[in-house]
Amino acid sequence: MRELKEKILKEGRVLSDTVLKVDSFLNHQVDPQFALKMGKELAGRFAGAGVTKVLTVEASGIAVALTTGLVLNVPVIFAKKKKAFTQEPGSYYSNIFSFTKREMVGIYVNKKFITRADRVLIVDDFLAQGEALRGMVGIIEQAGATLVGVGVVIEKVFQGGGKALREKGVRIEALAPVASLAGGKVKFINGLN
Amino acid sequence: MRELKEKILKEGRVLSDTVLKVDSFLNHQVDPQFALKMGKELAGRFAGAGVTKVLTVEASGIAVALTTGLVLNVPVIFAKKKKAFTQEPGSYYSNIFSFTKREMVGIYVNKKFITRADRVLIVDDFLAQGEALRGMVGIIEQAGATLVGVGVVIEKVFQGGGKALREKGVRIEALAPVASLAGGKVKFINGLN
Repeated sequence: MRELKEKILKEGRVLSDTVLKVDSFLNHQVDPQFALKMGKELAGRFAGAGVTKVLTVEASGIAVALTTGLVLNVPVIFAKKKKAFTQEPGSYYSNIFSFTKREMVGIYVNKKFITRADRVLIVDDFLAQGEALRGMVGIIEQAGATLVGVGVVIEKVFQGGGKALREKGVRIEALAPVASLAGGKVKFINGLN
Repeated sequence: MRELKEKILKEGRVLSDTVLKVDSFLNHQVDPQFALKMGKELAGRFAGAGVTKVLTVEASGIAVALTTGLVLNVPVIFAKKKKAFTQEPGSYYSNIFSFTKREMVGIYVNKKFITRADRVLIVDDFLAQGEALRGMVGIIEQAGATLVGVGVVIEKVFQGGGKALREKGVRIEALAPVASLAGGKVKFINGLN
């Protein structure tokens, strides 16, 4: 998505070879019109796939998940976070490692919101090591629902988080796939196109 | 907002005299079309007030804050949470008590996102004891910005969180002001109108 890539080049800050900060329009301050554009783009890529629910995890995935759900006209579920290893009754549950917080975090979804009949699209702001994604896939599997695909705003492809799922044939769409942040420069896969 | 009140009566669950659960459309699963309706309603109530930024706090306020910002066509900032008492450099910062988690939580906003020139509308899903609200007001004061008002989806008026601010003349709009949850029944101020 060219407009997103241009926005990343203009407003993003590369803090290290693995950290890209885009808090001016995605992670802390959100540009609602632009969030709607990204939602339209993601919804368009999964149009006709029969999505019945969008799943994200709190907090920074909510904006784009919401606009994607708005365009697809389906409910949006945000998995909640809590301290790890404490079971939440009546919920599907995964433990994931938070690289940002350097600790295990539990994420859960109430069982009544995902059923076997659901076709779930996972939406998130970032795909890096893929821990949050792995946790959400685990929740969908526990529910016996179908994973339709994954839509993310920024994928740091070099961190490999999407690899295992792609090898299983899951479709992952990234609006801005980043090949490298080396030397303080954002390099996109396939350039700006 | 009549449609919201009807939805609360239909889908909400009263868990105690102080706890109303609305996780089917607001707090865990979100109905995006309905979130947009609520955003339109809140935006309409503050139309002409010169709002330049919408401020909420992660996570469950984000959906309605986003749709309100979408309609008002202004950026939405979500204050981030972290363990209390640890200063975040370059940020405005408040410590609040989380009644849900029964612990102190720090909320912060990067200084670059709110300036003296800003006219800020606070949006949140719930107003109960008013701790999150107090924290956000503190952040706006630290920034020297103007608090235009507060828009919330559900106000549990009997818990008194809006009282101090209203006495200072701040306008608080609740789409569903709840007078009482006693006896397992939701009683709205002014009934369903």
